Amino acid sequence: MRDPYVAEMKAVILNICPTATIIDITHQVDPFNVRMGAYVLATAANYFPRDTIHVAVVDPGVGTERRPLLLQTQQSFFVGPDNGLLLLAAEQQGVVCIREITNTRLMNSNVSNTFHGRDVFAPAAAHLANGVSPTDFGSETHRAVKPSFVNVTLRDGNLIGEILHIDNFGNVITNITAEHMMQIGTTDALHIELAHQKLKLKFCKTYAEAKLHQPLALIGSQGYFEIAVNKGSAARKFNLKPGDKIKISATPPRTQPT
Amino acid sequence: MRDPYVAEMKAVILNICPTATIIDITHQVDPFNVRMGAYVLATAANYFPRDTIHVAVVDPGVGTERRPLLLQTQQSFFVGPDNGLLLLAAEQQGVVCIREITNTRLMNSNVSNTFHGRDVFAPAAAHLANGVSPTDFGSETHRAVKPSFVNVTLRDGNLIGEILHIDNFGNVITNITAEHMMQIGTTDALHIELAHQKLKLKFCKTYAEAKLHQPLALIGSQGYFEIAVNKGSAARKFNLKPGDKIKISATPPRTQPT
Amino acid sequence: MRDPYVAEMKAVILNICPTATIIDITHQVDPFNVRMGAYVLATAANYFPRDTIHVAVVDPGVGTERRPLLLQTQQSFFVGPDNGLLLLAAEQQGVVCIREITNTRLMNSNVSNTFHGRDVFAPAAAHLANGVSPTDFGSETHRAVKPSFVNVTLRDGNLIGEILHIDNFGNVITNITAEHMMQIGTTDALHIELAHQKLKLKFCKTYAEAKLHQPLALIGSQGYFEIAVNKGSAARKFNLKPGDKIKISATPPRTQPT
Repeated sequence: MRDPYVAEMKAVILNICPTATIIDITHQVDPFNVRMGAYVLATAANYFPRDTIHVAVVDPGVGTERRPLLLQTQQSFFVGPDNGLLLLAAEQQGVVCIREITNTRLMNSNVSNTFHGRDVFAPAAAHLANGVSPTDFGSETHRAVKPSFVNVTLRDGNLIGEILHIDNFGNVITNITAEHMMQIGTTDALHIELAHQKLKLKFCKTYAEAKLHQPLALIGSQGYFEIAVNKGSAARKFNLKPGDKIKISATPPRTQPT
Repeated sequence: MRDPYVAEMKAVILNICPTATIIDITHQVDPFNVRMGAYVLATAANYFPRDTIHVAVVDPGVGTERRPLLLQTQQSFFVGPDNGLLLLAAEQQGVVCIREITNTRLMNSNVSNTFHGRDVFAPAAAHLANGVSPTDFGSETHRAVKPSFVNVTLRDGNLIGEILHIDNFGNVITNITAEHMMQIGTTDALHIELAHQKLKLKFCKTYAEAKLHQPLALIGSQGYFEIAVNKGSAARKFNLKPGDKIKISATPPRTQPT
Repeated sequence: MRDPYVAEMKAVILNICPTATIIDITHQVDPFNVRMGAYVLATAANYFPRDTIHVAVVDPGVGTERRPLLLQTQQSFFVGPDNGLLLLAAEQQGVVCIREITNTRLMNSNVSNTFHGRDVFAPAAAHLANGVSPTDFGSETHRAVKPSFVNVTLRDGNLIGEILHIDNFGNVITNITAEHMMQIGTTDALHIELAHQKLKLKFCKTYAEAKLHQPLALIGSQGYFEIAVNKGSAARKFNLKPGDKIKISATPPRTQPT
């Protein structure tokens, strides 16, 4: 937000579709962090009105061969790069069709090599908002980069996932959902392996169920399994970062024979 | 703003009231800092058009018993938690009625334990914007948490208050207003005790009246008494923080008999 | 954005012109950094629709004698202080007329000494949006502060300019444009003197043309000559800051006779 880039995208949108209502999700995804962008988009997208057009750019590969996509889901539309950023959110909503945006008449007349957000994605979103048919943007495609960080596996009664995001409070959000948790028959106490630490945490409904500055586990407001500290930062306490693997079981891990 | 939370609140509002004009005041109140939130809300609220609906959340107690409130004032409406966040602003405008929001039909169908901003306050604000009557949200209540940090006292010719806020420039903003200052018969030079330091400062009209990098006192653009440094940070120079007490007199403090 | 100032300006605008569409360019210009503000405004302004009213404030001199200006260009309007902030952007668009804003009926009724953004510039912009004629704001003026940082000179086959801005990725953006570069007959390799360092850099079309973490030169998406590092920070690598001088030639600098 120190730079003119976001404003330029909005300006391009308003040039094409002056009545657009533009809502910011975030502009503070860490540079090049596709996983964080995918997480934030996936959690926010479901709350928006039907037929919302979501534009997202987190783009380490800009300037290289990386296709611009238009995804149509059962709820809404997604416009952005083919690098996994959109698919986590789109799959939650049920993907109907993925198109590669190739129609240069629906891009800025002067497409820069380095800013497809302004020159390709923003105009595509604005033309779509104006009622241009999805079929006008380009042909359907059946291959799209699918992020690895959406995989959660169940093995020997353990759920294995990874940390998606550290929020502003230091809450540690994983890719494990409430539905996953039901598979392991959750009890009040959870056994967790996390970045080479073993924790036993109370499974709570709210942060305040734990004592002040004490850790807890809960399903957060986004529907994902979280490690938190009541009025503190779990990320700092346990030295965690996005991408760290997590293993959860409802029963204590069996002692290894020595 | 790194997280999806703010966008989700706006999305919920637009789902219920698609024509709402949504203006951000700030999303950078320090976590759990009710005083800072109350200050920013109180200063900004008076500039908004009549009948604006202000939604505010700074909420260390979410998930515990903490009532959601709808405050009606002579100018506008306030929706948020009963923790003192709203009352500084609301009292400035003249409180007409305080209601506890209890009508679950005017909340999200699936209220989370941890995110009342999205599930209770945002829908309440949007329904109110749609014309739902305040009386539909819940009954009037006559007790509401009142923040201590609004108190300014006059004793022996000294005004005693506290630091409300350090702004982005390092200006130190107190809870003492221009009206309070008139009670002590202000002169050009003020004697100030502040976090165990004694200062004598020129009472100026603008920052530029002081020499470069020199401290001064003035009534800031928000109507509150400030300590500032011309093109510098008063907070850093004097090592000050919100909550620090301040004592001001227009005459030098009398020497204590030894 | 931690402070209520931006929200107060928007509230004032909506009070006067309730149908205004307000788009943020940035609120993260470094305090008092007129050059950075001028750069961001100049790059963003050209993408906005015709007749957009741009309001900008970066104002180390507020409270001193510094005239509020309304600039009319061939594309749009600019409202802000007479300190050079507006003129880089306005000159790009072709200045039609510069007026000093003196009509107090088009300001807030109670103009503070320290916040002209809210009390002078925001109301002027809103009244202009409402259709008030530019001539009503004040008389034409023929002197306006012109920033020195727009000057680029060509000497002995060298382009001499300066760093305008370091963006969020650490890309180093200069005031030298693609048009300037054509004057020196650019080849693939550029010889650059920058803050007492001599560099030989590949002149690329995209960041990804350089190897991972290697430096390059390119014309950025804003149309300015940039020094960058592929997936890294050029500002950190070469220890650069805005204001540093840059000298570019397409041929190696001649050896000095000793």
